[in-house]
Amino acid sequence: MPTIHDLDTPSILIDAARAEANITRAQAHADRQGLKLRPHIKTHKLPYWAKKQIAAGAVGITCQKIGEAEVMADAGLTDIFLPYNILGPAKLARLLALHGRVTLSVTADSVDTIEGLAATFTDGGHRLSVLVECDTGMGRCGVQSASEAVALARRIDQAVGLAFGGLMTYPAAGRAEEAEAWLANAKQALAASGLACERISSGGTPDMWRSSDTSVVTEYRPGTYIYLDRFQVTKGVGTIDDCALTVLSTVVSHPTPARAILDAGSKALSSDTLGLKDFGELLGTPGARVTGLSEEHGTVTLSGDAKLRIGDRVRVVPDHCCVVTNLFNEVNLIDGDRVLETLTVEARGRMA
Amino acid sequence: MPTIHDLDTPSILIDAARAEANITRAQAHADRQGLKLRPHIKTHKLPYWAKKQIAAGAVGITCQKIGEAEVMADAGLTDIFLPYNILGPAKLARLLALHGRVTLSVTADSVDTIEGLAATFTDGGHRLSVLVECDTGMGRCGVQSASEAVALARRIDQAVGLAFGGLMTYPAAGRAEEAEAWLANAKQALAASGLACERISSGGTPDMWRSSDTSVVTEYRPGTYIYLDRFQVTKGVGTIDDCALTVLSTVVSHPTPARAILDAGSKALSSDTLGLKDFGELLGTPGARVTGLSEEHGTVTLSGDAKLRIGDRVRVVPDHCCVVTNLFNEVNLIDGDRVLETLTVEARGRMA
Repeated sequence: MPTIHDLDTPSILIDAARAEANITRAQAHADRQGLKLRPHIKTHKLPYWAKKQIAAGAVGITCQKIGEAEVMADAGLTDIFLPYNILGPAKLARLLALHGRVTLSVTADSVDTIEGLAATFTDGGHRLSVLVECDTGMGRCGVQSASEAVALARRIDQAVGLAFGGLMTYPAAGRAEEAEAWLANAKQALAASGLACERISSGGTPDMWRSSDTSVVTEYRPGTYIYLDRFQVTKGVGTIDDCALTVLSTVVSHPTPARAILDAGSKALSSDTLGLKDFGELLGTPGARVTGLSEEHGTVTLSGDAKLRIGDRVRVVPDHCCVVTNLFNEVNLIDGDRVLETLTVEARGRMA
Repeated sequence: MPTIHDLDTPSILIDAARAEANITRAQAHADRQGLKLRPHIKTHKLPYWAKKQIAAGAVGITCQKIGEAEVMADAGLTDIFLPYNILGPAKLARLLALHGRVTLSVTADSVDTIEGLAATFTDGGHRLSVLVECDTGMGRCGVQSASEAVALARRIDQAVGLAFGGLMTYPAAGRAEEAEAWLANAKQALAASGLACERISSGGTPDMWRSSDTSVVTEYRPGTYIYLDRFQVTKGVGTIDDCALTVLSTVVSHPTPARAILDAGSKALSSDTLGLKDFGELLGTPGARVTGLSEEHGTVTLSGDAKLRIGDRVRVVPDHCCVVTNLFNEVNLIDGDRVLETLTVEARGRMA
């Protein structure tokens, strides 16, 4: 069996046991809270993990792109949520085809999106479930008020081929209570209009851990929880030892005692720091910080007793793992030093 | 012939005439200065453009990864420079194979790198050209002094299968004069040691335009000049109308009068702003700014008379085009609205 020493760098390593433990831990939490778990595959983009998440008890998966959903449907996943406004004839035709082979649900936050869906989905015997996206404080997509949510829900309910599926939000980081109040109010407004709201879907790995069993939220769509990363560690979701994804890299230069250069730059680790200082954490080398990235070089600043030598192989926990898997064609599942399997990141690059 | 209206979003559009004009303009400048041009393919990762660059007069190409060089060699490119410390048996074996089929040169900034090369390349009849990388102010790779450069050049010169090929630098942005002085001094030190230095290679699109015909630099490795981007425009390299690469995107949500959401986020435009404010420039919509990105959403802030509607298709000039092509599997060459050809980004994802 090959080992990580046989891999060329930079490469992605996924500690399989840690990822499985992260899946189990989140599912147990959701079960305790009476929450349905619908993991977001954006983090791994792999049918392999999507199936493990379902096997652990997830009710289905979440994809962000039709192309991702198609890959997952091809691999045998049967319940897919696309929390996105799907617009335009090309995407709507693909969405209709997908609806013919999996249990599908989508979101809308405008009449425009609903009109497009209503014109495409016309079979009252096999209606598409459409949730209304709500802006509960994040300031991205979503209706701005409960009354807007009610108006859109009514419009969905009136379309022959659509069914009002509930509410969906991506809450502002750390403002889950605000989101909770927003959604509870909207649910009440829907009820007052005679519209049942059986599904309320929320997202974000950190917030999932703060959810309570008295919440109006019925399902969570965490993505990053499977691998975790430096950002999640700063949010207290786990420790650095829970992080399943690392980037294996080689020290290719050591021009000064305080500076070493890795063969992993922004095309391997990404420039997406999510606001953190430094571009990742170098395992096992206290005093070594990844302080800069250019496209194919990572700059490590060494202080104190930190030592690196040219040719050393190091492992970097990235700041944001979801954008890192999106840069690589393959990931390597590992157990200690052994490489169990090399998987093609099948849903990567499915832009539309 | 298909048009851009037939493309799904997000997609990359390359205005073919603009890219060709950018190639021609840079080549003419280099010719005027008596400089050799050796374009860096990191920006486009396409044999299609590499061949056009050679046809326009470039002496060869620059690649950053062996995998990129292999793609280019397979496509018939014959003179490749890899300005990188190549380390480890797997990469050295591939480098040796590459040396058997193209005119190859590489760099080194340490004895470790040179020892690895010297042990692999042992044919005195077909020596590998190795340039010494110099840190002329950027603070990334490279020897720190002229005396270090001389010591490494001597070590290269002594290896049976290696030939000292000259000096290479990536200058600090806007500090070309500092780099010039550094290199002139090193060249003199080499001469004093009896080592001829016939090739001095420098990089960076903006600095190329400030080069003079009295420089010690003999060749330039610009990458971004072919497409240009918002960062290059701020550096005065061209206007927004010279930018050949745009990301075609759809307005998928318009939750408030001042906020519209695009279907291009950090997985399409990248988070790499190179220090600029905003994440790209939206063409033809003054008052509309791309003020935020999450993975699959771009947030546009509208002010004044700026108007967008859900379903509108817009074109975004990214801040840094090199990291954008690295996210897509395909680019579309266009002439006005016509799609001339859709090219697979063949050298994308060649991490090692």
